[in-house]
Amino acid sequence: MIDLTLIGIGTGNPDHLTLQAIAAMRQADLVLIPLKGDDKADLAGIRRAMLDRHLTDAPLRLAEFDLPRRDVADPDYLNGIDRWHDAIADAWRAQIDRHLPQGGRVALLVWGDPSLYDSSLRIAARLDLAVTVIPGITAIQVLCAAHAIPLNDLGAPVQITTGRMLRDHGWPQGVDRLVVMLDGQCAFGGLPGDTRIWWGAFLGMPQQILDSGTVAQAGPRIIATRRAARAAHGWIMDCYLLARG
Amino acid sequence: MIDLTLIGIGTGNPDHLTLQAIAAMRQADLVLIPLKGDDKADLAGIRRAMLDRHLTDAPLRLAEFDLPRRDVADPDYLNGIDRWHDAIADAWRAQIDRHLPQGGRVALLVWGDPSLYDSSLRIAARLDLAVTVIPGITAIQVLCAAHAIPLNDLGAPVQITTGRMLRDHGWPQGVDRLVVMLDGQCAFGGLPGDTRIWWGAFLGMPQQILDSGTVAQAGPRIIATRRAARAAHGWIMDCYLLARG
Repeated sequence: MIDLTLIGIGTGNPDHLTLQAIAAMRQADLVLIPLKGDDKADLAGIRRAMLDRHLTDAPLRLAEFDLPRRDVADPDYLNGIDRWHDAIADAWRAQIDRHLPQGGRVALLVWGDPSLYDSSLRIAARLDLAVTVIPGITAIQVLCAAHAIPLNDLGAPVQITTGRMLRDHGWPQGVDRLVVMLDGQCAFGGLPGDTRIWWGAFLGMPQQILDSGTVAQAGPRIIATRRAARAAHGWIMDCYLLARG
Repeated sequence: MIDLTLIGIGTGNPDHLTLQAIAAMRQADLVLIPLKGDDKADLAGIRRAMLDRHLTDAPLRLAEFDLPRRDVADPDYLNGIDRWHDAIADAWRAQIDRHLPQGGRVALLVWGDPSLYDSSLRIAARLDLAVTVIPGITAIQVLCAAHAIPLNDLGAPVQITTGRMLRDHGWPQGVDRLVVMLDGQCAFGGLPGDTRIWWGAFLGMPQQILDSGTVAQAGPRIIATRRAARAAHGWIMDCYLLARG
């Protein structure tokens, strides 16, 4: 009865939309627009602008709703996430029941790509839905493109990880290149000074900021830039690629 | 004098083109179309079809040329690759000099994304060009979308590697999920039988094939399917995601 399409929309540059993503937006009967946190106005605004540009003639319904908040006080991190996802699934279900009681096509515009550090697939699995995924450009790709660098060394592996993993477990064995996402605390600060870093914030957006160099030289600059940008915008999204010195 | 744009075009599905990629195609004065190997007709045909669809009114010049062949007999793998890239850079230069003696914008349509297991950036670095990169949807993203699965476990790292690395060095430490690319020899065959595999060939193309399961159950099936598909088409491109059992 309900088909859910998770549409990867890239990281904010409306020109990073694929033709497939645009077609999927146009085929939706309902688009869920979750509102959350400090980035609420900015990120919902980007989604609305994308829909406005491509759906001029479509009688589309938008359902904006406040995303439940995660209990950050829960000492069990994974349990806290799990309960949060339950609550989000309930919120999706409430919107779908209200707006599409007869069934139909629901779409969610997912930042980046639904496969990479995004929980929409896990939340959707809690509901009885037929799920289709439309891939989107990730922050990693926009980072590499903006710096005009390859992600991997020739024939060599690359690992994608989180700030938490890098902080708690150090540099992983067996790889010389590391992408770090979801790092609010600049875990690169603890690395050897000759480590190379390519950093980007607000990737793909007009306010995009880039920096690169060794951790010794560029590291303190990036920490200061990040703090100032976060204060100026009220939120920040960033990621970086590291190469062993 | 010469601006080179490396345009990521995804893995063959023309609807995976981004609006930015289409705009970059339209702005090019010359598009280089390298022809190589057994996939020659198919892959060049996909590129030509994309250009035909989006450049109906543009006076675009296409330069098709045979890609130099890599000396696979070179016992020093990296040296062989290095010399091959030198030869490709020479071939690009010859086409550019011939078709754009006054300078202009050259574009290359790069399979997937120019940052991931692609050598265009390394080849471009041999020439004196201003390089712009347009990100494209990678095979990894199409694989995950087609199977409707996340790339990473919740908050956990994922490693991207090659068949050669998996064969020679085994499962890397510290990760439970592994993407394997450039694997002509089904290196997953040597893994524990309870390892999960999500496999895809010709991802995004009409002839796309998917399979998944444990290595014990799905592994032999994938090896047989891969062999038959390669024989039928004359070439194959595939990749897979593994999760520790």
